[in-house]
Amino acid sequence: MARGRFISLEGGEGVGKSTQLAALAEALRGRGLTALVTREPGGSPGAEAIRRLLLEGEETRWNPRAEALLFAAARSDHVEKTIKPALEKGEWVLSDRFLDSSLAYQGEAGGLGIEAVRDLHRFGSLDFLPDRTLVLVLDESEGALRARARDGHLGDRIGSRPPSYHAAVEAGFRAMAEREGDRVKLVDASGSAATVTARLLYTLGDLIS
Amino acid sequence: MARGRFISLEGGEGVGKSTQLAALAEALRGRGLTALVTREPGGSPGAEAIRRLLLEGEETRWNPRAEALLFAAARSDHVEKTIKPALEKGEWVLSDRFLDSSLAYQGEAGGLGIEAVRDLHRFGSLDFLPDRTLVLVLDESEGALRARARDGHLGDRIGSRPPSYHAAVEAGFRAMAEREGDRVKLVDASGSAATVTARLLYTLGDLIS
Repeated sequence: MARGRFISLEGGEGVGKSTQLAALAEALRGRGLTALVTREPGGSPGAEAIRRLLLEGEETRWNPRAEALLFAAARSDHVEKTIKPALEKGEWVLSDRFLDSSLAYQGEAGGLGIEAVRDLHRFGSLDFLPDRTLVLVLDESEGALRARARDGHLGDRIGSRPPSYHAAVEAGFRAMAEREGDRVKLVDASGSAATVTARLLYTLGDLIS
Repeated sequence: MARGRFISLEGGEGVGKSTQLAALAEALRGRGLTALVTREPGGSPGAEAIRRLLLEGEETRWNPRAEALLFAAARSDHVEKTIKPALEKGEWVLSDRFLDSSLAYQGEAGGLGIEAVRDLHRFGSLDFLPDRTLVLVLDESEGALRARARDGHLGDRIGSRPPSYHAAVEAGFRAMAEREGDRVKLVDASGSAATVTARLLYTLGDLIS
């Protein structure tokens, strides 16, 4: 049996990741593949417990370094308990966020540096990487608009940070697509949901066939 | 006002750390110093929340790498929220365990390597170190005896690991005393509690005067 593929879907707040993740899983299932949808932070019982520590409470609850360590711990658990076992069973795994969110949010926007955050992933998950990372990108003001429309979505500790932070997150994702162009692909998130899904599937063409 | 001193007390299970920590704080207070007693994992609200994740549940709840990341996250919070503010107020801080426990337990006994675990501390707490680390050492079989006598104390995820693990922990502490002899001192934990307290105070003589 062939090993499954691991795809992460990335992007700032309000770019439509959840909708696209469901549509992508549906499209893969339509091709006879088994698709497991998961998310970060979280995706395994231990990592979901860490997620609650990360997203609840005051903005100052964690300093940036403690926060990055918690994300790396959650990811280590998620990889070991959920992602690798599914891949070994031949399933495709689609994750709503993965390492590149930590690189963009904590590394780039949070000022810790992309290399320092990558080092935590080398330690925690032995640098386990997605087969493909799709980053949904949107004109910034449109993204902000959509985000505001989804009442309450930005209410957690990280989503509620200022626009300058979220602009730096976007820059971080673009930096990753430049650094690791074979793995990380930018996908235009404008237009109808069906159009965006078609673009995502096109970008996975070489893995599906 | 002079900055306070930060002392960590280390040692395997059942060497009498808790008793000695209280006696040491009392002795320092008797010399007119303010002494804050704290512990790891924990010592701040965030770190205590991580402590619960670390010590409860099944032995297999966390893989060794996730566990080391969680300890480093808790320590980062403890240093920032509790230890540094107290030192800046001129208080002495006495911690039941600190970095050297991670080096001995996760680094040496857990097989991750002392350097890899130290790197997490460099990242999380910018390599913040105690002014002095006192390691209580005891003849191994006596320590095991005392531990068994303290019913239930070894019932958490880490205390309940096999004797070979705890022997490796001991070796890890001794390795740290060799590597960083100015900071890390081995103190004989045999004899009466008062005798051990006197030995500990003697080892702190240059800092107290």
